[in-house]
Amino acid sequence: MLVVMRADATAEQIAAVCRHIESLGLRAHAIPGAQRTAIGITGNKGALEPSDLEVLEGVAEAIRVSKPYKLVSLEVKPEPTVVRVGRAAIGGGELAFIAGPCAVENREQLFRIADQVAATGAQLLRGGAFKPRTSPYAFQGLGEKGLAILAEARERFGLGIVTEAIDTESLALVEQYADMIQIGARNMQNYSLLRRAGQSRKPVLLKRGMAATLDEWLMAAEYVLSEGNYQVVLCERGVRTFSDHSRNTLDLSVVPAVKAVSHLPVIVDPSHGTGRRDRVLPLARAALAVGADGLIVEVHDQPEHAASDGPQSIYPRQLEQLMEQARRLAPLLERSAPGAAAGAGAHPAYGAGEGR
Amino acid sequence: MLVVMRADATAEQIAAVCRHIESLGLRAHAIPGAQRTAIGITGNKGALEPSDLEVLEGVAEAIRVSKPYKLVSLEVKPEPTVVRVGRAAIGGGELAFIAGPCAVENREQLFRIADQVAATGAQLLRGGAFKPRTSPYAFQGLGEKGLAILAEARERFGLGIVTEAIDTESLALVEQYADMIQIGARNMQNYSLLRRAGQSRKPVLLKRGMAATLDEWLMAAEYVLSEGNYQVVLCERGVRTFSDHSRNTLDLSVVPAVKAVSHLPVIVDPSHGTGRRDRVLPLARAALAVGADGLIVEVHDQPEHAASDGPQSIYPRQLEQLMEQARRLAPLLERSAPGAAAGAGAHPAYGAGEGR
Amino acid sequence: MLVVMRADATAEQIAAVCRHIESLGLRAHAIPGAQRTAIGITGNKGALEPSDLEVLEGVAEAIRVSKPYKLVSLEVKPEPTVVRVGRAAIGGGELAFIAGPCAVENREQLFRIADQVAATGAQLLRGGAFKPRTSPYAFQGLGEKGLAILAEARERFGLGIVTEAIDTESLALVEQYADMIQIGARNMQNYSLLRRAGQSRKPVLLKRGMAATLDEWLMAAEYVLSEGNYQVVLCERGVRTFSDHSRNTLDLSVVPAVKAVSHLPVIVDPSHGTGRRDRVLPLARAALAVGADGLIVEVHDQPEHAASDGPQSIYPRQLEQLMEQARRLAPLLERSAPGAAAGAGAHPAYGAGEGR
Amino acid sequence: MLVVMRADATAEQIAAVCRHIESLGLRAHAIPGAQRTAIGITGNKGALEPSDLEVLEGVAEAIRVSKPYKLVSLEVKPEPTVVRVGRAAIGGGELAFIAGPCAVENREQLFRIADQVAATGAQLLRGGAFKPRTSPYAFQGLGEKGLAILAEARERFGLGIVTEAIDTESLALVEQYADMIQIGARNMQNYSLLRRAGQSRKPVLLKRGMAATLDEWLMAAEYVLSEGNYQVVLCERGVRTFSDHSRNTLDLSVVPAVKAVSHLPVIVDPSHGTGRRDRVLPLARAALAVGADGLIVEVHDQPEHAASDGPQSIYPRQLEQLMEQARRLAPLLERSAPGAAAGAGAHPAYGAGEGR
Repeated sequence: MLVVMRADATAEQIAAVCRHIESLGLRAHAIPGAQRTAIGITGNKGALEPSDLEVLEGVAEAIRVSKPYKLVSLEVKPEPTVVRVGRAAIGGGELAFIAGPCAVENREQLFRIADQVAATGAQLLRGGAFKPRTSPYAFQGLGEKGLAILAEARERFGLGIVTEAIDTESLALVEQYADMIQIGARNMQNYSLLRRAGQSRKPVLLKRGMAATLDEWLMAAEYVLSEGNYQVVLCERGVRTFSDHSRNTLDLSVVPAVKAVSHLPVIVDPSHGTGRRDRVLPLARAALAVGADGLIVEVHDQPEHAASDGPQSIYPRQLEQLMEQARRLAPLLERSAPGAAAGAGAHPAYGAGEGR
Repeated sequence: MLVVMRADATAEQIAAVCRHIESLGLRAHAIPGAQRTAIGITGNKGALEPSDLEVLEGVAEAIRVSKPYKLVSLEVKPEPTVVRVGRAAIGGGELAFIAGPCAVENREQLFRIADQVAATGAQLLRGGAFKPRTSPYAFQGLGEKGLAILAEARERFGLGIVTEAIDTESLALVEQYADMIQIGARNMQNYSLLRRAGQSRKPVLLKRGMAATLDEWLMAAEYVLSEGNYQVVLCERGVRTFSDHSRNTLDLSVVPAVKAVSHLPVIVDPSHGTGRRDRVLPLARAALAVGADGLIVEVHDQPEHAASDGPQSIYPRQLEQLMEQARRLAPLLERSAPGAAAGAGAHPAYGAGEGR
Repeated sequence: MLVVMRADATAEQIAAVCRHIESLGLRAHAIPGAQRTAIGITGNKGALEPSDLEVLEGVAEAIRVSKPYKLVSLEVKPEPTVVRVGRAAIGGGELAFIAGPCAVENREQLFRIADQVAATGAQLLRGGAFKPRTSPYAFQGLGEKGLAILAEARERFGLGIVTEAIDTESLALVEQYADMIQIGARNMQNYSLLRRAGQSRKPVLLKRGMAATLDEWLMAAEYVLSEGNYQVVLCERGVRTFSDHSRNTLDLSVVPAVKAVSHLPVIVDPSHGTGRRDRVLPLARAALAVGADGLIVEVHDQPEHAASDGPQSIYPRQLEQLMEQARRLAPLLERSAPGAAAGAGAHPAYGAGEGR
Repeated sequence: MLVVMRADATAEQIAAVCRHIESLGLRAHAIPGAQRTAIGITGNKGALEPSDLEVLEGVAEAIRVSKPYKLVSLEVKPEPTVVRVGRAAIGGGELAFIAGPCAVENREQLFRIADQVAATGAQLLRGGAFKPRTSPYAFQGLGEKGLAILAEARERFGLGIVTEAIDTESLALVEQYADMIQIGARNMQNYSLLRRAGQSRKPVLLKRGMAATLDEWLMAAEYVLSEGNYQVVLCERGVRTFSDHSRNTLDLSVVPAVKAVSHLPVIVDPSHGTGRRDRVLPLARAALAVGADGLIVEVHDQPEHAASDGPQSIYPRQLEQLMEQARRLAPLLERSAPGAAAGAGAHPAYGAGEGR
């Protein structure tokens, strides 16, 4: 922490600030300058807030020098974390792909789409059973019934399951059925939910809040790690800005920013990030090119009938294209991408032809 | 809903869109234009999303014409709602003032401050027992013990109690002890919590999320009303923008914007809205001048020792000034403001002198 | 400037940074900490940029401690500046009111409105002769002919003239005809124009850019002052955010923030700040309540026929209300407001009745 | 344009709006709905503003259906524009690379860097002679002398020259010496400058303003085209948001958004977009992957001594890497990238070794 005194601060005010700092068990280092004095503080273990000092007389500003997070930091753990979910090792050499419909609508729909997702080589299946909706009158998901369908799809198609928990009750169910617990953007600062996720033994996918700074996002992850669950994957999904040509502004520069300070893997959601099907592939390519460890993408074979998010869901044939482009792009990034499934189209009952 | 066709849309595409709309049980009204055709839709009860139509061929854009909220709307209930909490009638002729420390720290601290709050004429006492903190390592509040202290303060000082619930567990406790349940900005889209608040019989103070549009905020209130609890007060507390001279950007123009579409009362929090003690009074005056139904303000007699938010807490003597200014301002706004307590300073044990 | 070294910086890197700082003629003060070392710099006259140091090895971050502006700062001139324009003394005890149409459309229109503006007691008349328009196809103003009409209105109605210059050519004309040169939000960082305004002997009204921080705005003013023109009034007119209920987000908290660091007067434009007539009066009251030195407001007697900005222009009768409210509010703010003109309605030819 | 009436609008108000529309020479199409009536307008040539109608009684909202731009639109010119500058054909099959120092500091510096830029295969050289600086006390560029050095570099190294004009005076010089006129972000709505650029016969590089929507950016380009200069290249360089981990938020999703509505080429500036050297390469790759027609990058061989923007300037060896990556990425994007210069290192006097 650095305390900047006002230009007109008196010697007595400066001395008083130093005494106050030392009364807290810390050391104060006064640095007299031409215009004003600054006071460096050492020995601070993180409990001190700039605002604790800004209330003192003669203080112009207190500036935090150290970061508030610890467990998520590269300084604590310099090697990258790899989070294993189903066949995927997120943060490792092979890029991870999570694909599937916005919501589980019924067994038929999910199986049809899961079959096609598996064929493309994507390792993980997404699908919401608990949906946080802006309107109380909109479809809220199938709940536990949806989770059971997802679990069945895992057995049939060999795909790990990623699905969202929206409160502690649904989290208890999600951790039973799924392979990875998603915490949505709206719940990024729902600390009770984060703590509960930290007590789970399943990996956590933590989306960035719509107005979250990098530090706040990492502090949300710190909540999960602080409860003992170190298997956290971050997910950028667009932030809210004045810009109105896309639903959100996908902040791809946060990917190298995360890598510069944290060991946690980070993936990107170009579906929510753009809100439009025709933008998903370009932004998916860009997300991989910038260094993301993987992607989460909404896929639907009949988006015009989807219960939610139809316009941003790509078709299965577009997911094939995306995976094919990822395979070509991966070597340039010193990564690999999963191959198309050997048994692609092996489940003839599930519409190898439909919607492609 | 209005569907705007692309300039190069074919007659067949236009006809297909019309057929699709009518297959949904709605009516389509094609409006051929010089450059392009638009199609108006009537009979829409709110289930249709612009994105449901934007996926059709030849469609450039679908524009929502009606608003998604209903129960919070002036169109459903043209007369203003008045929410009664303790001695206050928020949204009525008398302005409402909620004041107190950020967090309940101990019985002594709360009583000392409550005594001084009561003396100023403010009707309601705030104080957090469950604190949503950015860091898992920061003080998280006294929990139920804090609620018990608040309830005791109600009896002693005659102040209604407003305190935050951060999850369904804490809400069950808050509704037992307090007079009004606060839902914080970070939980504005925690829909499970909103539904649970909607099932309570205590009034709800709903803060605006840091990146929430007016419509999203009203939809969050709609969640509460849709469960049967019509006693909701909205609270503007600053939004997140690029602007860095204050902690948040207090959006005072949202106050008349709420009044233009909703019957719900709206108050302003200049403490979180600015993050600095020396900005609270000017912004408090401005909030009343713009038409707010009241204020919620953080007050502490020893802010340099406050467990949280010290730098934005005003001193009790500043609350007195604020109330005095409110009394002078109220007639201009065709309102009244509560008078200073007749028994001001009547509890000599609680530091009438201290910190003033 | 404070240089924060990385936790893993070597003693040699720290020494190298100190040597570099001293090679620039400055003094380095190393402050060893538990986790990392920080280096304070003194003797810096403002030429050093954080980025000059962030390129050195082992440096985590360089933090600016002093502010980049000088002449606009309270530290240089502690007493408030009062800018005299016509009958107004902006920044003095009497609040200043600038009112008039968005654009000068013709002599009849301007005179009709000026007559009514004068009757309300407002001291200054606004009206654009050079209009910066988003579309090249929109009405761009009457140019010098518009300025001549404004100058004529000054003589007839006793109102000082405030009008915008959009480039150095128009500025040369504006300074001939008008009493105050307005620099618009879009030109806040048009440094050639700012320098030229700094060479003028007429006062300058400098609007805040739509995405300008407080520091950038003050640095724009610094450009004007640095050329020798100290007569600058700042004007907040709304910033661009995600919020969509008003055209811009009026940032009223910037008013006390300006007052805390600068001696320059600051006024508010609730017309552009909201974009809607029905929001102008509430926000005008709030702007005065927060401490603004005055207002600039768009007024039109036939807004439905205005060449631009009709929907945000208030009617003359609303300006009367606004002035009346300002008179009631002023004493509470330890200010005064100008009285209605004794000779109100004295120019019967100019529609005392029309549009009221 | 679509006019949405209030739910409580009377039949007479609806009729009055229709009459008003027809009095303007347009056609009104009333669409009665269950809750409210909407009125479609056809025949509108772009002169009508939503606000012209929102002032009428009973109107809730007027929504623009057509876009305000014309000449920049794909509807007017469906085939992509290719802008030729020096050896580059921006918007064609070969990706375009503009590289060089932030500012021309002296002949030695520019020649040293230009030599290395040429060696990498980049087609165009950037370098500021007129610098828009936040502070009036900062280095403002060499002016015409800098332009002369740039022109000399063109002859010697075969690189087309791109440099910024900040006012009409500097534009007159820039068009004499350079091959492409850059309009900076701060001047994106300096309409006098845009008009003057439109009268030039040199191509224009138009940077997006820090708070500009896509429509506003395209309207700024429309200003240039409307004066007869169709050679415009758009450049995304980051927008201003709350996000604080990078200097600006690079909005890569705007690239496909531009392509969806305009025929103009669009390039990306990852240097200003991120403000940090270590972010430039990842974001440069992402910009190409998302579909940009090229890049503009700041390069300096001694960034620690650069007169400006040192920390975001990459080293010449990093530009080599960037170009190499672009060559590997291009085929995936159905593009090509220029090869390294055959004569790379052919100018031994200019530091083939230095800084690499």
